[in-house]
Amino acid sequence: MSDPAAVRTNAARLWQSIMTMGEIGATPGGGVGRIALTALDGQARDLFVSWCEAADLRVRVDRVGNIFARRAGTDPGAAPVMTGSHLDTQPLGGKFDGIYGVLAGLEVARTLNDAGLRTRAPLDLVVWTDEEGVRFNGLLASGAFAGIYDPDDVLNRTDRKGVRFADALASIGYAGTEPVGEHDVDAFLEAHIEQGPILESEGTQVGVVLGAQGQRCFMVTLSGEEGHAGTLPMHMRKDAMLGAARMVDAVNRIAFEHEPVPVITVGHLAVRPNSRNTIPGQVVFSIDSRHPDDVVLAGIHEEMQKICETIAAELGLGIDFRLQSERKSVTFHDECISLIRGAASRLGIGHRDLYSGAGHDACQLVHKTPTGMIFVPCEAGISHNERENARPEDLAAGCDVLLHATLARAGVAGG
Amino acid sequence: MSDPAAVRTNAARLWQSIMTMGEIGATPGGGVGRIALTALDGQARDLFVSWCEAADLRVRVDRVGNIFARRAGTDPGAAPVMTGSHLDTQPLGGKFDGIYGVLAGLEVARTLNDAGLRTRAPLDLVVWTDEEGVRFNGLLASGAFAGIYDPDDVLNRTDRKGVRFADALASIGYAGTEPVGEHDVDAFLEAHIEQGPILESEGTQVGVVLGAQGQRCFMVTLSGEEGHAGTLPMHMRKDAMLGAARMVDAVNRIAFEHEPVPVITVGHLAVRPNSRNTIPGQVVFSIDSRHPDDVVLAGIHEEMQKICETIAAELGLGIDFRLQSERKSVTFHDECISLIRGAASRLGIGHRDLYSGAGHDACQLVHKTPTGMIFVPCEAGISHNERENARPEDLAAGCDVLLHATLARAGVAGG
Repeated sequence: MSDPAAVRTNAARLWQSIMTMGEIGATPGGGVGRIALTALDGQARDLFVSWCEAADLRVRVDRVGNIFARRAGTDPGAAPVMTGSHLDTQPLGGKFDGIYGVLAGLEVARTLNDAGLRTRAPLDLVVWTDEEGVRFNGLLASGAFAGIYDPDDVLNRTDRKGVRFADALASIGYAGTEPVGEHDVDAFLEAHIEQGPILESEGTQVGVVLGAQGQRCFMVTLSGEEGHAGTLPMHMRKDAMLGAARMVDAVNRIAFEHEPVPVITVGHLAVRPNSRNTIPGQVVFSIDSRHPDDVVLAGIHEEMQKICETIAAELGLGIDFRLQSERKSVTFHDECISLIRGAASRLGIGHRDLYSGAGHDACQLVHKTPTGMIFVPCEAGISHNERENARPEDLAAGCDVLLHATLARAGVAGG
Repeated sequence: MSDPAAVRTNAARLWQSIMTMGEIGATPGGGVGRIALTALDGQARDLFVSWCEAADLRVRVDRVGNIFARRAGTDPGAAPVMTGSHLDTQPLGGKFDGIYGVLAGLEVARTLNDAGLRTRAPLDLVVWTDEEGVRFNGLLASGAFAGIYDPDDVLNRTDRKGVRFADALASIGYAGTEPVGEHDVDAFLEAHIEQGPILESEGTQVGVVLGAQGQRCFMVTLSGEEGHAGTLPMHMRKDAMLGAARMVDAVNRIAFEHEPVPVITVGHLAVRPNSRNTIPGQVVFSIDSRHPDDVVLAGIHEEMQKICETIAAELGLGIDFRLQSERKSVTFHDECISLIRGAASRLGIGHRDLYSGAGHDACQLVHKTPTGMIFVPCEAGISHNERENARPEDLAAGCDVLLHATLARAGVAGG
């Protein structure tokens, strides 16, 4: 038995596993297209299961297709420490999003095997079904496990062609028999690429994720009056474009004033009639606002709406400022945050706290068990893209943190 | 013979002529679709010529299809005072744009006939071919008459289907024999609806047009970097949408600072990828700027470019600020402006000076002969639209000003 504190994961093996998995559904642009519950998803699951079996893990599948690969602990009554993520990708996604978290967990198990280390609590390595939501809705299977959704509702969902989730699952051989969410979990730790540029830009290898931002999305419709660009004096105009411009600037200023945490984005804008020599009569634009504190986010909502309504009134424009969708923020558990921060510190790996801008399976698990996430840098923050990339040494650093956080939680037998 | 100063045009007859002409190419929406050099244009010309012949006017047609209907003067050596406009319309145009100027000229001739008044100089009532430029380029025939274009080049122009201007003209029977632009003109006066809201909003019946604004049109392309709306902190963004918003606001502010004369419009704006949760990587937008003084317009150009480049630099955006088209301003002749202003004053008709935001045949004639324009209000400033409308009493007021300006210029025989 090795000295537990000296054990490190195998960076080359982890990298090679990710590259091998990336061959299933590989795209010409260097990415991966492996949509949930397709034949390719089935192939990826089969490969994963074969690797788990080779590592002496006991594999079970629940009714919504979540795969659990258990490494037994010494205490038969202890609830497992769980880690993992997802194997499905965007239609033109990358090799790392989700997959890293699954294979980092596998690398932890392989490393413990090599070191001859046993843990007190068992470890559960998990693959959540359909995180991306390309075909069905995303985060359904982890949500069902966490008790947020009824498993039967999930199984009866249909894709655009009317195919049921249950039938798609059966067709790839992953309609399991385990009841959903009945087994206890001591904690859930998920490793993931950041999907943003903060860690890379700072040269920091590990992000200790405090939670996930809440999100409010709006659609703003401005109604002015069309007019001839050559004949209508400025003071007689009701220019929806000018109104939109002032509002886009104003909502961005609100985000800058609250830096560094909130992000506000106008990504979509459409002009009518969108002709060079006609004053726009209508502009529609989106606002995407995110903040880790739902109360602050509600305040930002109010502030944005007020300033947009003021600008509309100044310019004589009609305004419809409409909340389109809302996602509450998620706060990870202090005990898991401390586990991850402590492991990184002990390993001498540079780390910083941050919030997740995107949603993850961990954001569902938080409703069931103490949960934490480990982020690693990805190239230029690019994700959901064939160009998604990461460095082997950063992936290994995150994997080492996952290993030592897991050991700290599960306990080393005889240690 | 009536007292010349007491003569007035016949509002009802003018209105009726406009309504009758509006039946040719009438659209279901209450407008007119009578594109130049189509069969409908031919029908409108035939009706006009029949009215001219009934009014004892001698009709000639030049090689580019311009129609001249002469009312003889008492001085056989005098050059004619010319008035008129165009009979062609936009595809979904109105009853008044162009047509009013032609039929106001006819109403002047009819009124002089009724009053038994002869002028010293002859009067030429003109219909210019294809002012609107829907099928061929606009303002070609008046431009050829003014010596700006070679008549043969105009005749050899082709529409989108490859049909020559000359052949289209021949097909409607208006390929005339008169040489283009060889006959002398003493002055050209054109009556027209304002196509803007200024006169109506002030309750002023006549606009004394000082000239036409110069115009510079730009296309601005901003290059930023796409990024995830949830994960990229504000200070790390290169948001092309935010840049565009600040620029749209800034160029509008320049126009407001120079009120009331210049007009600056961003009518077109396109975002890439235009997705709610992606920071825009590229925005392209148009700027249409107009001012009656070309030197001031050049200064505004410089000011706009400088502020846009500054904003781009502040936000780390690439910028391509490109002049796409330019039209020089036109200044009408003081002697014609005074003629029109004097006539309105003598008639007790409320009037104000203004600039034309749009191009007109008069803007071509200015290169050949002393030129002036008379504007009358149109409903809500709407033009190039089936809803184009004007009040009979305003059309008559403009026609009376045209009559008396013409009489003042041509001289009343025995007066």
